[in-house]
Amino acid sequence: MTKNRVVRLKNRPVGLVTRDDFEIGDEELPELHDGQILVKSQFISLDPAMRGWLNDSKSYVEPVAIGDVMRSYSAGIVEASRHPKFSVGDAVTGMFGVQQYAIVDGREALRVDASQAPLERWIGGLGMPGMTAYFGLLDIGTPIEGETLVVSAASGAVGSIVGQIGKNMGLRVVGIAGGPEKCSYIVDELGFDAAIDYKADNLNEALKEHCPDGVDIYFENVGGDITDTVFNHMNLGGRVPVCGMISVYNATKAPPGLRNVRSILVNRLRVQGFIIFDFAKRYGEAVKALGQWHADGKLTMREDVRDGGVDAFPDVLNMLYSGENNGKLILRL
Amino acid sequence: MTKNRVVRLKNRPVGLVTRDDFEIGDEELPELHDGQILVKSQFISLDPAMRGWLNDSKSYVEPVAIGDVMRSYSAGIVEASRHPKFSVGDAVTGMFGVQQYAIVDGREALRVDASQAPLERWIGGLGMPGMTAYFGLLDIGTPIEGETLVVSAASGAVGSIVGQIGKNMGLRVVGIAGGPEKCSYIVDELGFDAAIDYKADNLNEALKEHCPDGVDIYFENVGGDITDTVFNHMNLGGRVPVCGMISVYNATKAPPGLRNVRSILVNRLRVQGFIIFDFAKRYGEAVKALGQWHADGKLTMREDVRDGGVDAFPDVLNMLYSGENNGKLILRL
Repeated sequence: MTKNRVVRLKNRPVGLVTRDDFEIGDEELPELHDGQILVKSQFISLDPAMRGWLNDSKSYVEPVAIGDVMRSYSAGIVEASRHPKFSVGDAVTGMFGVQQYAIVDGREALRVDASQAPLERWIGGLGMPGMTAYFGLLDIGTPIEGETLVVSAASGAVGSIVGQIGKNMGLRVVGIAGGPEKCSYIVDELGFDAAIDYKADNLNEALKEHCPDGVDIYFENVGGDITDTVFNHMNLGGRVPVCGMISVYNATKAPPGLRNVRSILVNRLRVQGFIIFDFAKRYGEAVKALGQWHADGKLTMREDVRDGGVDAFPDVLNMLYSGENNGKLILRL
Repeated sequence: MTKNRVVRLKNRPVGLVTRDDFEIGDEELPELHDGQILVKSQFISLDPAMRGWLNDSKSYVEPVAIGDVMRSYSAGIVEASRHPKFSVGDAVTGMFGVQQYAIVDGREALRVDASQAPLERWIGGLGMPGMTAYFGLLDIGTPIEGETLVVSAASGAVGSIVGQIGKNMGLRVVGIAGGPEKCSYIVDELGFDAAIDYKADNLNEALKEHCPDGVDIYFENVGGDITDTVFNHMNLGGRVPVCGMISVYNATKAPPGLRNVRSILVNRLRVQGFIIFDFAKRYGEAVKALGQWHADGKLTMREDVRDGGVDAFPDVLNMLYSGENNGKLILRL
């Protein structure tokens, strides 16, 4: 009998998650029914949104219930199949949860081509983060060649793709990231026009210097003070795709909010939230475009893969919020 | 020689304006040159945006300079003309300033038909406030029949027109206003479906009751706590035309801001600022539509006309921010 190592939510965290918020243990795998597949997960995606799933409040998906397996986007290999479209050995991605093995309906798994790109990339730049960047920048940001794009969390899973798509679309691209390593990565390796180190630079002065024509699109990943400052530099008719606000996800009291609302009015900004699931019918379009840029060498992707198995999940998740990761953060099982 | 009574900005106000922020006195009128007209103003529009024009900061128009005539949107009668398109006795509107007489280039004046509606209405529901409501609701709010619209400052110059256009477009319309008189006005006289008295009601509970299907469009006139609360009730894909934020115009320290940014993301809101001047090329379309609804009895307009001449300007302006006015606030000269 195969033992499954499983991470279940024990209680709702306050602030950053801790090991004690989860029950981690070995469980027996149930039997496989018709239509199901057994997946052995190899990689688990750590996503900023995970923290939100742990709160008991209305969101775009149901919160993870106490006692439930922690939700995650994962990549693995089919070990057994009672679904006609999947065979043993197939590489698949899906919401398999933070556990070694998952038994899911075949309709909930997506087969990917692990010969085209390494398996972990299919939950990174070629998976949801990449598609999020694609639809957020192109559909919500509506870029026009020659415009200036600023992206926060610029070396992250989504931000790094946003900036590169921006370059491919003929934009001037300025990334905001924390620390010299991330800043040189986005300029030297990803081809951004400039990087601003929000930990070291005066953001306001740096935006003046690097965005001499103002900012047309601000791709919002962080929220908080950075947003208020960027809003001072927005051009008339600017667009702000709101992808995430990682700076406030772990807040234990109400965050100060967007103080620079005046800029929305004065500059006629369009501030628009979006969720990748809204674009589900067009995933194929995004994967094709991302895959082509990737094949042409116009889209560099980097994964930051951490070891430790499912037990390391709480600690690795927190690396996201402290900004320790460099590239798409992934836990290897 | 005709004496002109003129209100000039003496120093930049902190918080609400006071009489001491202005120099009010009699001046000699200069000579009329070719292409100019002499207008005797009869009505001066008090607009929430006026307070913003007094701050020395980047906005959609230049601030009023120290020593300049206070900017205003006014209606008056041509008393002398050296412009071929205007004759003595013509009714006109324009940015004539807070003064009894104005000498302006004929291209800066708009002739209006004072037989179709009283002169003061051409700086109210048939003028910029009406056009602001028209473009803000229809172009930025993109309403769909059957949706729910919430409008703040609902008995005001813009809000009262927004709600009525909403009814004409088949929306459920809920207005937020201060005090029982304004609330009964918007329901009984303007035909809104419901009114919420933000001074007396629990806004959150009242929104639950009056917007059982949630809020699809929030027409933003006020900012502050009201906005945060309405954001809790927005539906997926909701739109928020940002017309004004009267609650913060007189703030002497940074207002707390929009704390409910999470709703933008979770509900995929489109929050979009706009300024009526952006629609200058389509003013004719708006005036035609507003005039037709008005003639058909589908658009009720009320002006709150105060006396006192130009000297009363500072006091009458402050009535806007205390919410004392009921209907479009206008100063009669």
